[in-house]
Amino acid sequence: MRVELLATGDEILSGAVTDTNSPYLLERLFTLGLRVQRTTLVGDVRGDIEDALVSAAARADVVVVSGGLGPTADDLTVECVARVLGVRVVEDAGVLAALQERMSKGVVRTANNLRQALVPEGAEVVKNPVGSAPMLVATRGHCTFFVLPGVPREFRQLVDGEVVPRLQARLNAEPGRLFHAARLLKTVGMPESHLDAAVAPITQRFPEVIFGFRALAPECHLKLLATAPSQVEADERLARVESECRAALGSAVFGHDGDTLASVVGGLLSARGHTVTLAESCTGGRGADLLCEVPGASRYFLGSAVSYANALKEEWVGVKADTLARVGAVSAEVAAEMAEGARARTGATWGASVTGIAGPGGGSDEKPVGTVFFGLSGPAGVRTEKRFFHGDRERIRQSSAYTLLDGVRRALLGEKS
Amino acid sequence: MRVELLATGDEILSGAVTDTNSPYLLERLFTLGLRVQRTTLVGDVRGDIEDALVSAAARADVVVVSGGLGPTADDLTVECVARVLGVRVVEDAGVLAALQERMSKGVVRTANNLRQALVPEGAEVVKNPVGSAPMLVATRGHCTFFVLPGVPREFRQLVDGEVVPRLQARLNAEPGRLFHAARLLKTVGMPESHLDAAVAPITQRFPEVIFGFRALAPECHLKLLATAPSQVEADERLARVESECRAALGSAVFGHDGDTLASVVGGLLSARGHTVTLAESCTGGRGADLLCEVPGASRYFLGSAVSYANALKEEWVGVKADTLARVGAVSAEVAAEMAEGARARTGATWGASVTGIAGPGGGSDEKPVGTVFFGLSGPAGVRTEKRFFHGDRERIRQSSAYTLLDGVRRALLGEKS
Repeated sequence: MRVELLATGDEILSGAVTDTNSPYLLERLFTLGLRVQRTTLVGDVRGDIEDALVSAAARADVVVVSGGLGPTADDLTVECVARVLGVRVVEDAGVLAALQERMSKGVVRTANNLRQALVPEGAEVVKNPVGSAPMLVATRGHCTFFVLPGVPREFRQLVDGEVVPRLQARLNAEPGRLFHAARLLKTVGMPESHLDAAVAPITQRFPEVIFGFRALAPECHLKLLATAPSQVEADERLARVESECRAALGSAVFGHDGDTLASVVGGLLSARGHTVTLAESCTGGRGADLLCEVPGASRYFLGSAVSYANALKEEWVGVKADTLARVGAVSAEVAAEMAEGARARTGATWGASVTGIAGPGGGSDEKPVGTVFFGLSGPAGVRTEKRFFHGDRERIRQSSAYTLLDGVRRALLGEKS
Repeated sequence: MRVELLATGDEILSGAVTDTNSPYLLERLFTLGLRVQRTTLVGDVRGDIEDALVSAAARADVVVVSGGLGPTADDLTVECVARVLGVRVVEDAGVLAALQERMSKGVVRTANNLRQALVPEGAEVVKNPVGSAPMLVATRGHCTFFVLPGVPREFRQLVDGEVVPRLQARLNAEPGRLFHAARLLKTVGMPESHLDAAVAPITQRFPEVIFGFRALAPECHLKLLATAPSQVEADERLARVESECRAALGSAVFGHDGDTLASVVGGLLSARGHTVTLAESCTGGRGADLLCEVPGASRYFLGSAVSYANALKEEWVGVKADTLARVGAVSAEVAAEMAEGARARTGATWGASVTGIAGPGGGSDEKPVGTVFFGLSGPAGVRTEKRFFHGDRERIRQSSAYTLLDGVRRALLGEKS
């Protein structure tokens, strides 16, 4: 099955917006064992869209088209698909009713939103669970077009809920097909080169398994794709490789596939009936923000004292003025007092703290930019750790927030350091 | 001048690596006033690369090709370009000497690196200041190929040092060339359809200005690109359109171009010598995180009491237990007490609070998911606002955090609501 992607939008071609939809879909298709032959980006230009649709349809069995389904005049995709199919544009009663309902609730408000009820005649119209524009499915010769809105949230929902299952079903129906089994192992705090070196001996013993590495600092992911003539064999092969990789990587692996570091920490806290309070300085609330991404985080997350100013470290988590004056806010002592105060003042099982220098200013010879102290207070007492992170302000803050959460994870797993 | 980009590499099409080169180049070209018509990504497949080269050359005056110049067997770009040009591949003495020097220094180590001395016969060979593979410039008909290595650091150096200056020179030499002036206006809290409707009358009076809309909920951006026979006229035209758009959009425009909502709020606070403390519930620290993205935020940002648990709303910002029991945490009264407590306890000029229901659970008929209360305490007293946001947990939290910051911005501008 030959697959191509076509993304449309002036905002992508002007560099104003980066196309994140295509990488997302490429990754999802990879786990199906599908290779994409080509990805094309064109602007909101009728001729360019139509030309790209025609030539993609001539080469591919499936073309996933995204963008240009909005309500404004530069949203041309429906029109272009209809012209390429040689059909009229018609109003879809179902989409119209859904739009009118959204208008009555105030979700969409202007009459030009009703343009989104227009579809190529004869196209299958698939409801968008999180937005106004439906997904459209249409065929030209041997080629199927899946036409999706470009809004990343809507695009991803429709890819996961509709495109991937439909392509999987087509693959299942192919004679002589190969079967695939994929696993994404997620690590934190391990550079790509270390991860690569750690699993290198395993790659040599499983030449039929594809190993892919992806650095998303401070996370690094290892993708395993096993291929075999039957699903049972592919699953078995994957299970063997995964088990060896997990043994080689140890507790650096925090989770797999859909797990996030926050969801794993939350699961561990929930399972034990524990709670956590944070005290954050250089991360500026990002640790709390990560934990709160998980629905139901209020079961185990009490709060975070984002105490950027030193006075708030005293006011909210009881850091001593004397300690601040003596060793400075970026120190193991202050990290320890922040963690202890966060725990004691809020009655949490765990208090976790972070204080450091995110830069670009504020560094010194003794404490350069990237110096970060962590504190963790729990049933067995308090401990601190000093770390050094490379990179710019954003990178240091991100690494610090992940390390903060990872410290809680490792403590819950009973690790000493 | 019609420009296209062609990026090659299996790692891009498998989703293992995201193509960051194309967005970089797209943005650089946009500022030259150059519109890119199409970007194509293909894998390391001879037929696909050659086909893409031929069709791009047929459409475009300039094609920037990246990737596939490495030393390994799947690096096919030189071969494919030579075939498309109808020339042989020859060894370039200059590149060979440079490679041998790098080998003698241990920078490149294997004999197959010498493959990188092969170039299409007749192509201009441009030294790569930071890597082994040279940039190649060749023409087919009216089309010029710029062929660059895919390593992002090398790609960017060659784009900035060679491609952009060469294209600028060509633009300057064009008879009757047009000049461009661009502005990005950024709004918050205004759906794309409202923005579109608000400026629609202006678009009709300036048909020679391109209006582009980009929804990045809860922000929405308006890009203006004015074109004229001279730079002075383009600038004047842009200034007129911008001024009319600003008048039509009012204070919904929080900034332009490189501004972020956090940098604008920070700038306003700094200019007045004011400080702010947040008290966040449903946003879980995202308001603080946004403010802290700006270097030097410690000048005006004191901290945030991320009080997810009700007990912490009492402990950190002095919300009364009685108020919580009487009206619940998601209420105007609690928002007001959070804002007042945040201000009073920390001595900030402003205390800003948010408490709401981010979902997916926790909603009721009276207070459905998406109900959010904001409080703002300042020199003139405290006020609250109730808002309702659509979408999932992430969307509601994001909208709430931006609205929290925007409330501070509007207060600093002296607005009443």
